[in-house]
Amino acid sequence: MKRTIITISRQFGSGGRTIGAQLAKELDIPFYDKELISLAAKKSGIEERIFENADKQAVSSLLYSLSMGMYNVSSSVIDRPDVLPLNDRVFIIQHNVIRDLAEKGSCVIVGRCADYVLREDPDAVHVFIHSDLENRVRRAVEDYQFPGEKAAASIQKADKRRAAYYEYYTGRRWGRMEQYDFAFNSDRVGLENVVGFLRDWVLRTRQD
Amino acid sequence: MKRTIITISRQFGSGGRTIGAQLAKELDIPFYDKELISLAAKKSGIEERIFENADKQAVSSLLYSLSMGMYNVSSSVIDRPDVLPLNDRVFIIQHNVIRDLAEKGSCVIVGRCADYVLREDPDAVHVFIHSDLENRVRRAVEDYQFPGEKAAASIQKADKRRAAYYEYYTGRRWGRMEQYDFAFNSDRVGLENVVGFLRDWVLRTRQD
Repeated sequence: MKRTIITISRQFGSGGRTIGAQLAKELDIPFYDKELISLAAKKSGIEERIFENADKQAVSSLLYSLSMGMYNVSSSVIDRPDVLPLNDRVFIIQHNVIRDLAEKGSCVIVGRCADYVLREDPDAVHVFIHSDLENRVRRAVEDYQFPGEKAAASIQKADKRRAAYYEYYTGRRWGRMEQYDFAFNSDRVGLENVVGFLRDWVLRTRQD
Repeated sequence: MKRTIITISRQFGSGGRTIGAQLAKELDIPFYDKELISLAAKKSGIEERIFENADKQAVSSLLYSLSMGMYNVSSSVIDRPDVLPLNDRVFIIQHNVIRDLAEKGSCVIVGRCADYVLREDPDAVHVFIHSDLENRVRRAVEDYQFPGEKAAASIQKADKRRAAYYEYYTGRRWGRMEQYDFAFNSDRVGLENVVGFLRDWVLRTRQD
């Protein structure tokens, strides 16, 4: 099989993470989510490296941000990346970890703007998972123990946070159809069907 | 097989119509596009030419489909639909034709806001097909004989017209992911793969 990177972006409670984990299992390739990316960052020592080599790495990452109008900072900041806000440094680290993981070989990556980070990787396939609010509420209550009466509001807040994070760091709108190769309403299509289709598609189309 | 209505919305040049026609063929169910809906609507007595121009004319009038309750129109207008602007009457007729066709049994319907018209039909499945501009230009030149140098601009104009028509008559934004059960980048996924997946999904999940 050729190297295949599958990024999964998803609405909160849509089952996107479950789909990603199952897909990785069936394809027998690594699965990375937020926790695992953080872990990988620590293990790889990339955090130290990025700060030691701050000049080069942070500036080049910051430059694309600047080019997209996400920052309005004076050139003195470009020369001193250590003055960047902590969140932005974290994003830059995650960005580099995702690139490193993807370079190593096939994997499934959930969230963390991976679709954006790998947007120019010809071997990356981008998937968006969404669902109706009703099903997402059910999942939030069952799987994440959200209090029932507040679940809908909490879900919408979580999605707003995801959208804001994505839009701030990428300059693109979150969940815009054109940015994804596949999009599924997980409950209407069926989680197993989504997994099965993506698995078969990868096996059929991405073999050497 | 249970009654299954598949609506296909698509960007111009994305191959959505081809996918719909092939899917209908493989499922052995009727396929309806703009021409066939116009034909079915001929009974109404409105000239076919009017239908053909329905989405090309400026969508500038105010009153339309009374059945949708989006406007608060006085009963005197409901009793006298002939006072509605012509475009709006065309939309209402198409709206009713689509409902009638869907009630008859399984089918594939391309365009004509069918996803919106059948949004509350539990047996309706909504698909959106998009693709990169580059591939859409190629298709416009090869399949529709668009002059190459103007193809990109023409495609974007055609999509703007589709979006405006959709938004005017439905009050929803065209191509918003949440409105569709499936969305595919046809060229990245492969037209045959899209057809195959939808066919298998219908056969697997919608049998009695």
